[in-house]
Amino acid sequence: MEQLAFRNGAALNLDQISQAVIARLAQIEVAGEDSPEPIERNGRLELTVPIGISVRHLHLCDEHVAILFGEGHSLTVYNELYQKGYYAAKEQVMVVGKRRCIETVRVLGPTRPYSQVELAQTEALQLGLKLPIATEGADPACKPITLVGPQGVVTLPGGGKGGAFIARRHVHMSDVAARRYGVKNGDLLDLFIDGARPTTLHGVLVRVKAGWRNEIHLDTDEGNAVGIRNGQTGTLIIPIK
Amino acid sequence: MEQLAFRNGAALNLDQISQAVIARLAQIEVAGEDSPEPIERNGRLELTVPIGISVRHLHLCDEHVAILFGEGHSLTVYNELYQKGYYAAKEQVMVVGKRRCIETVRVLGPTRPYSQVELAQTEALQLGLKLPIATEGADPACKPITLVGPQGVVTLPGGGKGGAFIARRHVHMSDVAARRYGVKNGDLLDLFIDGARPTTLHGVLVRVKAGWRNEIHLDTDEGNAVGIRNGQTGTLIIPIK
Repeated sequence: MEQLAFRNGAALNLDQISQAVIARLAQIEVAGEDSPEPIERNGRLELTVPIGISVRHLHLCDEHVAILFGEGHSLTVYNELYQKGYYAAKEQVMVVGKRRCIETVRVLGPTRPYSQVELAQTEALQLGLKLPIATEGADPACKPITLVGPQGVVTLPGGGKGGAFIARRHVHMSDVAARRYGVKNGDLLDLFIDGARPTTLHGVLVRVKAGWRNEIHLDTDEGNAVGIRNGQTGTLIIPIK
Repeated sequence: MEQLAFRNGAALNLDQISQAVIARLAQIEVAGEDSPEPIERNGRLELTVPIGISVRHLHLCDEHVAILFGEGHSLTVYNELYQKGYYAAKEQVMVVGKRRCIETVRVLGPTRPYSQVELAQTEALQLGLKLPIATEGADPACKPITLVGPQGVVTLPGGGKGGAFIARRHVHMSDVAARRYGVKNGDLLDLFIDGARPTTLHGVLVRVKAGWRNEIHLDTDEGNAVGIRNGQTGTLIIPIK
């Protein structure tokens, strides 16, 4: 193969160059270098972060996929999400409340240990449900809810074994990015969002996992209250310790 | 009539005492003395104010009441609102959007010079309308919208002659209260709301009119995003000049 470059005096072929470039790209991604540097202002860091508006959705465990969509069924990708490896599935289910139901709630993949339904307060009120603010279906505060799929019905029990809740606003970031910004999993930060209805959301939960990209998640009520759409950015305020 | 009290040495009867009490109550109301004193903290005033969540509604001019509900019809009181002289009417109309309609939108009284429909962004999206943030139907940014009543149909033209919009969050207060707090009509203040989703709403518009009681107005998206219900309070931040 033709030699195109040199490293430490040794000639490299196209394969070796490709590998080096891919490795460097991976490094940039892991380091969060695709997101802007924070700006130091008034003794704190201001970090511009893209905002994803989470429309009502649910996550399912493998057992519930089988009950709702049939034995042996696997979730199929509808479209990829901003976080790598996560996707909106083609599958939708009906979510049944006390006063009403919502016919189409999209499943997000991949599957999880517990099934969980994430609604906005507007939807909870429509359904006649009083839901807690929570982060995951394993939270004991989550409420029971019934799901209807084309092949079967499941009632999530709530109380820490899967259920319905209103998602606590949060920011995703990688372990590398968190170290770089001096924050850790579970920290609560302020988020300023400018626009027609400028707002500061307090207590944005930091969630850290290797490989995650910087991204704020709000729900549709929060997005509508602030007057923003998916993909706009906000300014995360990070105290300097 | 029996004499029950003395003023400046002169005996007062029950009628005179009643008149004095009523006059004093009126004075307290006008002065806004039924709302708590602001607290000075960190070089600014913090004022606790009750929050009213405005559900979608509309105001009508006399001409449109006649078209929608029939010639000679007058709005009838369904229930009184927190601000004296204002009421939710028994009358409701259908509001027609581009993709969908909302069958029941309540009329608030009394009638106004221009008709105006105030929706939350959630409802604007359902109807397929792109609405501005505004304060009144006379704002040129307001959009056309069609109203259907039991006796007729009206299309509001928008563009400053009545139309649909999303209400800018605002605080009502009397002229006396405004002077006392050192604010004026049109000022923009911050509002901190504590709770499960603590939030600071910036740019809350001050609206001043004699006789108004201190009251914040948010829409249902804002109420749901912050996780509060009608009647809770927030802390208005007033700069000291």
